[in-house]
Amino acid sequence: MRVIVIGASGTIGSAVARALASRHEVVAASREGPEVVDIEAAASIEALFERTGPVDAVVCCAGSGAFGPFAQLTEEDYQRGLRSKLMGQVNLARIASTRVRDGGVITLTTGVLAQHPTPGSALLSMVNAGLEAFVRAAALELPRGLRINAVSPPWVKETMVKLGMDPSPGLAADDLARAYVRALEGDVTGRTLQGHDAQQGA
Amino acid sequence: MRVIVIGASGTIGSAVARALASRHEVVAASREGPEVVDIEAAASIEALFERTGPVDAVVCCAGSGAFGPFAQLTEEDYQRGLRSKLMGQVNLARIASTRVRDGGVITLTTGVLAQHPTPGSALLSMVNAGLEAFVRAAALELPRGLRINAVSPPWVKETMVKLGMDPSPGLAADDLARAYVRALEGDVTGRTLQGHDAQQGA
Repeated sequence: MRVIVIGASGTIGSAVARALASRHEVVAASREGPEVVDIEAAASIEALFERTGPVDAVVCCAGSGAFGPFAQLTEEDYQRGLRSKLMGQVNLARIASTRVRDGGVITLTTGVLAQHPTPGSALLSMVNAGLEAFVRAAALELPRGLRINAVSPPWVKETMVKLGMDPSPGLAADDLARAYVRALEGDVTGRTLQGHDAQQGA
Repeated sequence: MRVIVIGASGTIGSAVARALASRHEVVAASREGPEVVDIEAAASIEALFERTGPVDAVVCCAGSGAFGPFAQLTEEDYQRGLRSKLMGQVNLARIASTRVRDGGVITLTTGVLAQHPTPGSALLSMVNAGLEAFVRAAALELPRGLRINAVSPPWVKETMVKLGMDPSPGLAADDLARAYVRALEGDVTGRTLQGHDAQQGA
């Protein structure tokens, strides 16, 4: 398959691109390139598909949102998270649904906070759970045999190291990447794959 | 308790206001009044609390979002739904968390499509599930003994009649209103109360 990986310069996206590269043709995209895309702008997503030409799948490992105390999250924090992680991925799915080849696959990224909130996660729990419900619903209507799924990463070891946390309870990005491979190569649709399932093989 | 009901002129909100009125002091608010509020504008929510003075609870039965085919929902449709049903209620919760009296209660409205998507529900499933996760997470951090919950209405008979649908599988608004009463008078927090549970009493 020819697969666009968005966020390919990030911790998770680069691991996903590596995992896919042995069996698929990967088109690496991010805000910094090699293919430049900003998922916050629908026109930028459209332009990416114009430049790449036909693809079979798109994987999104881009999009962010603030983690912080409920009493301190501002309306602008919420708006930024909605523009980036939520609507960035919704617009990607909308546009990809008209662009990827018949039988193609769209894979988005949510996160463990959707189902397991913690203090500080009001915004990210909302965005991640919203995306998971979007995926469940959109899968009912995608045309041409298209599939759509999400992968919900747990805490990732490499990210925890960057944040100065103990990485031992985390999942290595290369292990997490296997969930994205399963979303691409399996036959599931409308599902959120838990990243930690990837540790159990296949 | 002194309770603001927002959306009090609507099908659900008017039933909730009636259900609460026998035991509580209800301040009825909506875009049309008697207390005028537009939840899409944080300043309008702030002004409402300024005018009403101290309250113990706020119930939101306002906020909308488009139901329609995935292939036809536009970015503007999503943005409108996010501004109204999602961020309208998030901003209400944010602002209410600094305004309602100690031990007070915030109750939002989601909907059955959060957990039970159907063709046409991509936007509303996303918004409703996002709100439910927001409620779960925000409840972990609310100060001063405040509680926050959502009520998830199933299809409401009166709405089905307006839409020309067979209302027999629906729930009457007055029965649904009992879920809002339970959210207010119980001790639950961080929960989404299923409207149909209200049929089973108390």
